[in-house]
Amino acid sequence: MADRVEAYQRLFQHGGDINSAAAAFPEAPAPWIDLSTGINPVPYPLPEIAPACWTRLPSPAGLAKLEAAAAARYGCEPGQVVAAPGTQALIQFVARQFAASQVAILGPTYSGHETAWRAAGAEVGLVAEAAELAGAAHRVVVNPNNPDGRRLPAATLRALAADARLLVVDEAFGDFGAESLAVDPPPATIVLRSFGKTYGLAGLRLGFAVARVEIASILRAALGSWAVSGPALEIGARALADGDWLAKARARLEADARWLDGLLARAGFEIVGGTPLFRLAARPDAETAFAALCRLGVLTRPFRERPDWLRFGLPAPEDRTRVAAALSAL
Amino acid sequence: MADRVEAYQRLFQHGGDINSAAAAFPEAPAPWIDLSTGINPVPYPLPEIAPACWTRLPSPAGLAKLEAAAAARYGCEPGQVVAAPGTQALIQFVARQFAASQVAILGPTYSGHETAWRAAGAEVGLVAEAAELAGAAHRVVVNPNNPDGRRLPAATLRALAADARLLVVDEAFGDFGAESLAVDPPPATIVLRSFGKTYGLAGLRLGFAVARVEIASILRAALGSWAVSGPALEIGARALADGDWLAKARARLEADARWLDGLLARAGFEIVGGTPLFRLAARPDAETAFAALCRLGVLTRPFRERPDWLRFGLPAPEDRTRVAAALSAL
Repeated sequence: MADRVEAYQRLFQHGGDINSAAAAFPEAPAPWIDLSTGINPVPYPLPEIAPACWTRLPSPAGLAKLEAAAAARYGCEPGQVVAAPGTQALIQFVARQFAASQVAILGPTYSGHETAWRAAGAEVGLVAEAAELAGAAHRVVVNPNNPDGRRLPAATLRALAADARLLVVDEAFGDFGAESLAVDPPPATIVLRSFGKTYGLAGLRLGFAVARVEIASILRAALGSWAVSGPALEIGARALADGDWLAKARARLEADARWLDGLLARAGFEIVGGTPLFRLAARPDAETAFAALCRLGVLTRPFRERPDWLRFGLPAPEDRTRVAAALSAL
Repeated sequence: MADRVEAYQRLFQHGGDINSAAAAFPEAPAPWIDLSTGINPVPYPLPEIAPACWTRLPSPAGLAKLEAAAAARYGCEPGQVVAAPGTQALIQFVARQFAASQVAILGPTYSGHETAWRAAGAEVGLVAEAAELAGAAHRVVVNPNNPDGRRLPAATLRALAADARLLVVDEAFGDFGAESLAVDPPPATIVLRSFGKTYGLAGLRLGFAVARVEIASILRAALGSWAVSGPALEIGARALADGDWLAKARARLEADARWLDGLLARAGFEIVGGTPLFRLAARPDAETAFAALCRLGVLTRPFRERPDWLRFGLPAPEDRTRVAAALSAL
């Protein structure tokens, strides 16, 4: 029983932990439907992967090709892009590389930033308004924000960059039409872009930092050689160059988000915000609803500090019927 | 022409850069045979990879399974093992995490250690004898050493650990019967183990640190969540548990190394040392021999500071005939 309670608590820390969900709710019907992350449920189709991608060290030429594809996608120069084995790896590196005594983070938001900066010895202040970020020289904004989808205009962020020692703009959910600071990043700014969420390949571990060349060079040296796997070089370069797939994915996700919003409204939730990859919904008894959904094998994302919130990822097409039934049963 | 010279220079920095070899020697017959690394040319057979390995965030349970398999292979406790996306990522992290003013490295050896510590702001001294390592509180030994295969006894390394602030023992080539410090790691010691070399899957990016639990916890926190890809969790757990494959790989590599040593001796090289994954051979005109082999499409590893040395990886069975012909033509 203590194990079940511990497993239940873990569901408030990070999304995607189906094993803990199954341990906390052993009676739930299998398979679980995982709506606890903001990962596209319809992944980019995996191409044939050449054996050399697995067997050889990832080549400098393959890395250059990937970073060129990312630069074209994000609207910046290849020298401004640094590929990494996931955005989380960059968050860890940045916190250690740009040692800070105080960091201001616009919150509530993805907890990984706070955890990384604290582990690197910084005092972290979560602030509720963008203007309060000016209280610290090191500043972090997730834009669009996770979990509420709040968007700051690029002009606000550029003004925040102007007198910062470092501004981190985490655009993990920025692939769908939000204004991006990756287009001409200001000085002292690191923009983070995720690959795995939009392309539905979170297990691949691929993410990017976009920054002016001086900062990009520092990050490149910090990551060292062969940071990104051979399969990630190959799959990432192909997917990022595929504008058609991205446009179709966006249209499908936006339609699915409208469909989910309708279900959530009928289930008594108020839509607080979101992006095409997730919806944030409020109901006074959200934690009770969370547990009820878990018992039906549908994992969503609860928040310890906001017991009235649940975040919903978008379901795969084949899971829509079960999700609709689970929400109507609430 | 300037491009060709630059490409040629890059071949002295790291092995495995076939693109630069082809740029420096455009007249070489394709395909190139890459003997410039110490990567097993017969890779562990790739299992079917479940789609969820690509699409989902790597799970804590999958990571625990991988680290348990690594612990069983290396003879330590699972809590002492930290998986990372390649040993190079650990080298980068360790240099930043354990900030040092002075670092002593037993050399000549793999240059990645020196580069990472210098980038982290340390003054690095390369020393020729193990006893000289005691001159600095932070110490690095590659054991068995790359490129010469020199092995220090475990007792010598444990004595070096006793009064060190940090001892890094890089056992990247330690899978084939060398005494390992991973079995009961001393305090203040980090043992690095490579996966990609022995298993012939360098593109996968997987490596391990082995240390006492306190240090392992620091490294785990520094790496953060989801550091290792889904495919690496799956393939790594299976391969590390496969003792039969490892025993057969060792027997084949040792036989191939004897065969290569014979060819090298007939080509006028003296065998300086090595491991089952590479041989270091000396000839006064080694750089001339390097270029001659390149013109035949055989890439080996030259050393700027030791123009009399060449390092040879083991060829794949299908490449033996061409390698033998190239060496006899010297």
